[in-house]
Amino acid sequence: MSARPGEDELIARYFAPLAASSGALQLTDDAAFFSPPAGCDLVVTKDALVAGVHFYPDDAPALIARKALRVNLSDLAAKGATPFGYLLAIALPADWSAEWLAAFASGLAMDQAEFGITLLGGDTVKTPGPLMLSITAIGTVPQGRMVRRAGALPGDLVAVSGTIGDAALGCKLLGKTTGHIELADDLAAQLKDRYWLPRPRLALAPLLQDHASAAMDVSDGLAGDLAKLCRVSGVEAQVRVEDVPLSLAARAVLDADDTCLETILGGGDDYEIVFTAAPERMAIITAQAPVPVSVIGHISAGQGGVVFRRDGQPLRLLRGSYAHF
Amino acid sequence: MSARPGEDELIARYFAPLAASSGALQLTDDAAFFSPPAGCDLVVTKDALVAGVHFYPDDAPALIARKALRVNLSDLAAKGATPFGYLLAIALPADWSAEWLAAFASGLAMDQAEFGITLLGGDTVKTPGPLMLSITAIGTVPQGRMVRRAGALPGDLVAVSGTIGDAALGCKLLGKTTGHIELADDLAAQLKDRYWLPRPRLALAPLLQDHASAAMDVSDGLAGDLAKLCRVSGVEAQVRVEDVPLSLAARAVLDADDTCLETILGGGDDYEIVFTAAPERMAIITAQAPVPVSVIGHISAGQGGVVFRRDGQPLRLLRGSYAHF
Repeated sequence: MSARPGEDELIARYFAPLAASSGALQLTDDAAFFSPPAGCDLVVTKDALVAGVHFYPDDAPALIARKALRVNLSDLAAKGATPFGYLLAIALPADWSAEWLAAFASGLAMDQAEFGITLLGGDTVKTPGPLMLSITAIGTVPQGRMVRRAGALPGDLVAVSGTIGDAALGCKLLGKTTGHIELADDLAAQLKDRYWLPRPRLALAPLLQDHASAAMDVSDGLAGDLAKLCRVSGVEAQVRVEDVPLSLAARAVLDADDTCLETILGGGDDYEIVFTAAPERMAIITAQAPVPVSVIGHISAGQGGVVFRRDGQPLRLLRGSYAHF
Repeated sequence: MSARPGEDELIARYFAPLAASSGALQLTDDAAFFSPPAGCDLVVTKDALVAGVHFYPDDAPALIARKALRVNLSDLAAKGATPFGYLLAIALPADWSAEWLAAFASGLAMDQAEFGITLLGGDTVKTPGPLMLSITAIGTVPQGRMVRRAGALPGDLVAVSGTIGDAALGCKLLGKTTGHIELADDLAAQLKDRYWLPRPRLALAPLLQDHASAAMDVSDGLAGDLAKLCRVSGVEAQVRVEDVPLSLAARAVLDADDTCLETILGGGDDYEIVFTAAPERMAIITAQAPVPVSVIGHISAGQGGVVFRRDGQPLRLLRGSYAHF
């Protein structure tokens, strides 16, 4: 193990190179500053992740870093926002190593380049407990245009990006949640990859901003998250399970064990976007979307529930959503 | 102990009432939005605090909350910024109680009212480790006017707000750091109070914005923090120990035990502001400052050191600053 630097040296070595904006002042100041673009609202979100709760302590450090960043970017994407920068608090446990931190920082660098964002500031502390990360991500939307959860109207269609359930199945394959899954290695690898590395759907943000009536990112499972969207919108969602988009791998799992439907619809970590739009608006989104988008149902009058139907029959899920808390 | 609510109920009960801005959407959305005032830069800072490292786990929950908020507001004050709002991540250990959280939230409410800020968002997670908090505070300055650490020039005077060393002595009195202090109860109470409840010097921010050449908040001890300011400014500071402002309580401690000077100058948690300004500018600041300001020395050409002199003799401090890390 290399010698471990003190806090200032650690920041200078691993984090300052990530702070490219002039207002971040190479992380040598108490705070960072930036000039928000004229005519824009700022969109801010903050997620915390704890080792042993939100990821495995022995997950690859670069993947831990990228996941922490991406779950926040996923929130911004669902709000129609363009990410700008982020602040990072990291609490390091007693056994941290310089190698671990170098790999962690390389993961951040990789994703900063991919998503065009910069580190603005943060804090590095030690903890007698497990590794913990907290990221505050900042994005922009044209003034008044953040897409909210509240806004779904009866008659709207409901859609999701990408495929649903992969990460929850991957999590199960990794032994983090109970249950056994038999699956070919290549398909299993795809599901685990979805658990480790969310794909924030930022490419969808401009279309959501222009056309969606409501949106949120699917982090705690489609069933529970869509129910939250419906509750704050004061509506009900009707979802056809057959139309929920599944990957080949998830389809294979479900074909072998139908009880996995619960995990697919109720598990978490999808980091896809579930959204609603009036039918004519949804047609524009699905026609122009640069990522796969699937219409899975519609909104009706009601009080915040989600009704899943399979072969026309209402489906009863045992638990609504995965609670990290 | 009251029944403990789940995450959504917990947020609705304790945190949503703190989220007064319409863009915080009662914390029922993925993110918050706000329109930054025209012509302003945003100033962002983030501090993390871990139980057992930055505060005692059995400190009063309202005080833990207020300290976590105030250490961030102190950063904004030192940058000449006006605070606007904050995001809070809280990782709750297994033994959290509804009473604890209610008291914690009441502390936040108290300080929101005092400082005119609002909760914008955040995240609540559980941890197998100790309680941890991370706050991102957001403030504003007129464009281009954030006061930086880099900017001190030879010939500038050096000043600090308030009194120095109280919190570090209070911390020692509380038995958190080693060393014994004999002190009358009322004076001891004052020092402990300074440890528990920082006073962010926001009242000084407009004057710093207009007149200071450099500033930072004193969180890790005057000696170490002023050295940081000098390093990034590429200068040296000459400080007369006799002019460092002490409270009556700190004076009493020092009179009884001269070795406590090390704690006073090198300890942390002051949350005062150390700043530099050209003499004519400093005269304006000291004349108009709504809080006590003491000139303690001047800036000379040099390479980042701080020379403390007492009775004209250079003083050698054993350690530069308190490192929370």
